[in-house]
Amino acid sequence: MEYDIAIVGTGPGGLEAAITAKIRNKNILLLGSDNLSEKIDKGHVFENYLGLSHISGSDLNKSFLDHIKSLGIEITNEKVMNIYDMGDSFTIQAEKNMYNAKTVILATGVSFGKPYENEEQFLGRGVSYCATCDGNLYKNKKIAVIATSSKEEKEVNFLAELASDIIYIPLYKDIGKLDSKIIIKREAPVKIIGNIKVSKLVTNQAEYDVDGIFILRDAISPKTLVPGLATEEDRVIVDRNMATNIKGLFACGDIVGKPYQAIKAAGEGNIAALSAVEYLAE
Amino acid sequence: MEYDIAIVGTGPGGLEAAITAKIRNKNILLLGSDNLSEKIDKGHVFENYLGLSHISGSDLNKSFLDHIKSLGIEITNEKVMNIYDMGDSFTIQAEKNMYNAKTVILATGVSFGKPYENEEQFLGRGVSYCATCDGNLYKNKKIAVIATSSKEEKEVNFLAELASDIIYIPLYKDIGKLDSKIIIKREAPVKIIGNIKVSKLVTNQAEYDVDGIFILRDAISPKTLVPGLATEEDRVIVDRNMATNIKGLFACGDIVGKPYQAIKAAGEGNIAALSAVEYLAE
Repeated sequence: MEYDIAIVGTGPGGLEAAITAKIRNKNILLLGSDNLSEKIDKGHVFENYLGLSHISGSDLNKSFLDHIKSLGIEITNEKVMNIYDMGDSFTIQAEKNMYNAKTVILATGVSFGKPYENEEQFLGRGVSYCATCDGNLYKNKKIAVIATSSKEEKEVNFLAELASDIIYIPLYKDIGKLDSKIIIKREAPVKIIGNIKVSKLVTNQAEYDVDGIFILRDAISPKTLVPGLATEEDRVIVDRNMATNIKGLFACGDIVGKPYQAIKAAGEGNIAALSAVEYLAE
Repeated sequence: MEYDIAIVGTGPGGLEAAITAKIRNKNILLLGSDNLSEKIDKGHVFENYLGLSHISGSDLNKSFLDHIKSLGIEITNEKVMNIYDMGDSFTIQAEKNMYNAKTVILATGVSFGKPYENEEQFLGRGVSYCATCDGNLYKNKKIAVIATSSKEEKEVNFLAELASDIIYIPLYKDIGKLDSKIIIKREAPVKIIGNIKVSKLVTNQAEYDVDGIFILRDAISPKTLVPGLATEEDRVIVDRNMATNIKGLFACGDIVGKPYQAIKAAGEGNIAALSAVEYLAE
């Protein structure tokens, strides 16, 4: 099955793109967290989302969720690992499944961190962003896992079932229930060392001999997500139609740059969806 | 008194710009119709204004109005005739008053028509867009008045008090109560003829000898409104920060181009306001 439009991200940009595309009778796939934007959820009060005055972040997300539900739009709760341009269409490699779509709208926000030294160089050679995809490669091996949010703890426990040794570096505050095998280190990762493959993780306090390093961030940087995508300081470059340098690939919301505001992201999602609709008509 | 930001237009672009600027503690002037966008008001149901699902146009406008009221924002119900770039600031010539502002956000929509043949050539030499401003020049003279909406009928009656003869060409359907002196013609204006000043209005059916022609449109084309403004087919050219070619002048909403959608206009209003705030800080 090939979708008309795959939308990656469930913040206001992705959601507005989804409802606009749905209203235009497109066959859509909406991929992302079914908790919607965590950034909005944590926001205390929003004063400038026109039409919804003085609204809490969680109520704003609730009104967004009600809206997509009222149109029968469902969220596929899977993290997207890679998007490949196949010429006439796109292949989307998500955590559990592969999907195909004629066009893609990227709305994954800016919650990705700066890559660590040598991280990109060792991607696929010991560095992985996906426990489900690559966990089996590290059966009875030594690994380190870095995570930006407690949402990743399920993945960390899954990896603990496979690995012989597991060092865990949580980059957030409150740690939940973890497998007793996991050794927690409150340190800051600095760089990755290796020859052909990863051999060491260096932090601000120690060095660890490892066979693999899992880096579990809320979002993957756009360049890593989509090979060949043009960016400027990790901001996806778009024109006024929200088109990127890749034909059929559009982007909206925080990922295309400031201001980081919900209504701005929604407005751009609308443009991106209508641009995708127009592209499909050609 | 000099305002920090003058916002011209009370559709979703202008309103979002106003609330964002207000929240950023700017001293703002919001000029436009206090009935908000007529286009939205007439829209049956809006399905894709994220967060307000399946809402009627009038309810959408009501939620916008409630929002600006909750922040203490008032609308100055005056049509803007001209905006002049004075170098460090702007002078805004409205129907009744002149205003000064350090920056201007243009959000007047696209409800202006194509100019008639020779219209721009005779502007200020017999062609006027403002009854209040220029009515007195035509005491006891022959005039023609063209109007795009019944909202202008007050103006037409005012002109009838002054002129000796008045021909009225309404470009809308239901005509209200007009002065008995007014001669109504259901014709389509074609061109304006004259030498130094206007002498004739030519329609698709007749020619009328006149001293002056009032053309009362819902909005004035951006080029006529702001001398020197860069446009492309009547669309104001903006960059991704909603900046125009004139320093300190920003634009948003339908006036900067398609898609003509409320949420897109609101998103752009947010960007325009924050760009103006940044410009003021420099």
